[in-house]
Amino acid sequence: MPRASVVGAGMTEFGPHDKTLSELFAEAALPAMADAGVERGDVDALFVGNTLGGTTENDTHLGPKLASHVGLAGVPTQRFEDACATSSNAFKHAVRAVESGPHDVVLVGGVERCTPETGLDTPEMTKAFVSAADRQYEQPAGITFPGVFGLLTKRHMHEYGTTEEQLARVAVKNHANGTLNPRAHFGKETDVESVLDSPLVADPFRLMDCCPFSDGASAVVVASEAFADSFDAPVDVTGIGHATDIVPIADKERLTATHSAREAASQAYEEAEIGADDVDFCELHDCFTGAEVLATEALGFFADGEGGPAAEAGRTELDGEIPINPSGGLKAKGHPIGATGTAQIVELTEQIRGEVGSRQVPEATTGLAHNLGGDTATTLVTVMEART
Amino acid sequence: MPRASVVGAGMTEFGPHDKTLSELFAEAALPAMADAGVERGDVDALFVGNTLGGTTENDTHLGPKLASHVGLAGVPTQRFEDACATSSNAFKHAVRAVESGPHDVVLVGGVERCTPETGLDTPEMTKAFVSAADRQYEQPAGITFPGVFGLLTKRHMHEYGTTEEQLARVAVKNHANGTLNPRAHFGKETDVESVLDSPLVADPFRLMDCCPFSDGASAVVVASEAFADSFDAPVDVTGIGHATDIVPIADKERLTATHSAREAASQAYEEAEIGADDVDFCELHDCFTGAEVLATEALGFFADGEGGPAAEAGRTELDGEIPINPSGGLKAKGHPIGATGTAQIVELTEQIRGEVGSRQVPEATTGLAHNLGGDTATTLVTVMEART
Repeated sequence: MPRASVVGAGMTEFGPHDKTLSELFAEAALPAMADAGVERGDVDALFVGNTLGGTTENDTHLGPKLASHVGLAGVPTQRFEDACATSSNAFKHAVRAVESGPHDVVLVGGVERCTPETGLDTPEMTKAFVSAADRQYEQPAGITFPGVFGLLTKRHMHEYGTTEEQLARVAVKNHANGTLNPRAHFGKETDVESVLDSPLVADPFRLMDCCPFSDGASAVVVASEAFADSFDAPVDVTGIGHATDIVPIADKERLTATHSAREAASQAYEEAEIGADDVDFCELHDCFTGAEVLATEALGFFADGEGGPAAEAGRTELDGEIPINPSGGLKAKGHPIGATGTAQIVELTEQIRGEVGSRQVPEATTGLAHNLGGDTATTLVTVMEART
Repeated sequence: MPRASVVGAGMTEFGPHDKTLSELFAEAALPAMADAGVERGDVDALFVGNTLGGTTENDTHLGPKLASHVGLAGVPTQRFEDACATSSNAFKHAVRAVESGPHDVVLVGGVERCTPETGLDTPEMTKAFVSAADRQYEQPAGITFPGVFGLLTKRHMHEYGTTEEQLARVAVKNHANGTLNPRAHFGKETDVESVLDSPLVADPFRLMDCCPFSDGASAVVVASEAFADSFDAPVDVTGIGHATDIVPIADKERLTATHSAREAASQAYEEAEIGADDVDFCELHDCFTGAEVLATEALGFFADGEGGPAAEAGRTELDGEIPINPSGGLKAKGHPIGATGTAQIVELTEQIRGEVGSRQVPEATTGLAHNLGGDTATTLVTVMEART
């Protein structure tokens, strides 16, 4: 099958924005198009990710609305929604569309507003977020996402002896990386003591184990193999995996395995014809520190139970053997839900191009993105590689 | 390109349902799978359409939730949202996925609840619906969808002399067809006088010019060319068009032309290698009686301005030259938003198979579905044909 490539990337700063979804999306989409050097008439389609706009801003049917706002009125477009994996799924469909022929150049991105700029307070936004959890059993029981990932992580601590200090090290690393990313929601360092002293949210997570609610947008231009050569610096998409797991979490076979991540990773590695050892750096879904530990194991970077000690030993730091979340991750870069997936693709693109300055991973030729939705019910894994 | 075929179809009755989205979807999905004769292990993926579940029931991330509920946990799945065109777009992506190779058998469907069974009253549901209209200009101005389509229709009356009596004839016809459809929300006839005597909603529309808010679900099984032959009665998908138009309506070039419908129809006819004259019957998006008149012109069944007189002359009735909405359409069958698109595909499938009893269109070998979203900003047109 012919390959697809990312030929342009753009994103806003993540953090509070007092703008409509259309305005915010344009601030990622137009830079992505400019970066690619494409004009309006060159773009065949727009694939849009947004998770909560209906609830938070009474704004749905965003495909044609965003298209109109960025000068693409008339192109085929639709909105995807898969909780926190929303724009990765839009990206997957854009890649498959250019690989299989219907389109040659697709703009794909995500946009979300989750901060008090929406007019919603934290309890209201927490209720909106938890719409992605099981409606029949989990929501009535009052289990929100810190609780969901707290359960998974607590079980990991029980099975493998993972410690709160090891979790805190994930937060410390991602905050350190975030200070090097001018688009990050949080730009200041933290330390293990500060994380462990922060207020308890859902055992074992303290406030500093949790990513923030952010506003933001991200977008990339995907081109077919036939077109990609005409661009300056195409970065190839060599593998995508997409798998799901049963809902609710009570029905999952093994909580700490995050089955959908293992299956999606397996698919992506197979399509890219690489293994975990070939990955130079990774952007993964660290909605909570424990989620990063579980993901580093599910992706095959470390054996089961080794994710905590690996974080503690610095193996995932920017100068470690497998840098994880050089962007700062969801923890420090921020988490505007529907924009997170393609923001990971932006970081992979810019890292592989060698454009990210002080957070540059040396010899970053193969990058992997891991984006999950809900209680790990959806996971998308994407492998991108420099042209050789 | 290899073709895709619909090999199984199922839907619930449309009307009030006191069930969760997962339960309701299962009542369409499981019959569709049984109709196709596929088991759980045969289905590669689930493409889901839902429009307002986040707002109405705090229920998002429906891909894995619905998959889990119908025994498909683990398959790739995602939710599509494109206002009233939601599940047609999911269907398009399912068709393209089996045509281009990633999947062989895909379950695709939509589900929605919009009636007071959700706990929301008409003003609250009206606000939820209008999330699909322009957020910056139209919503603050208080223009809801009866107003949007009222404007389009009023302009049509101005340009062509279309009359309220002609509009009423659309309602009368669709209600008559609805009495023949056991799954229709409304099962009783009406007459021109009753329509014209019903309360004014948004000039020129009276209550009986408007489709209802319904609950319901619909689903079909799509199979690739390589697989379709093994099924009993495959109906081929020979053309799909998907086009969009600028938002807000103030920016549209010509209100009565419904540009996206013309463009989508043109694409679908070209792909199917047919013209409007070859279509034996049509399911189209009659959210309001005026919308049906505009659509019959945009699809090429009648010249511009002839849609009203054609309805009045009975040319679109079940025994007319081009039967429109034999199912009863949105007007009488009902309109559970995210379920409407694939419900049209269900009707096309069952008509072409000759299975719909007293509302059967004679020699129904070529059917066309037209499904629009928002203020006609999105339109999907699908052509399906009997195997020859």
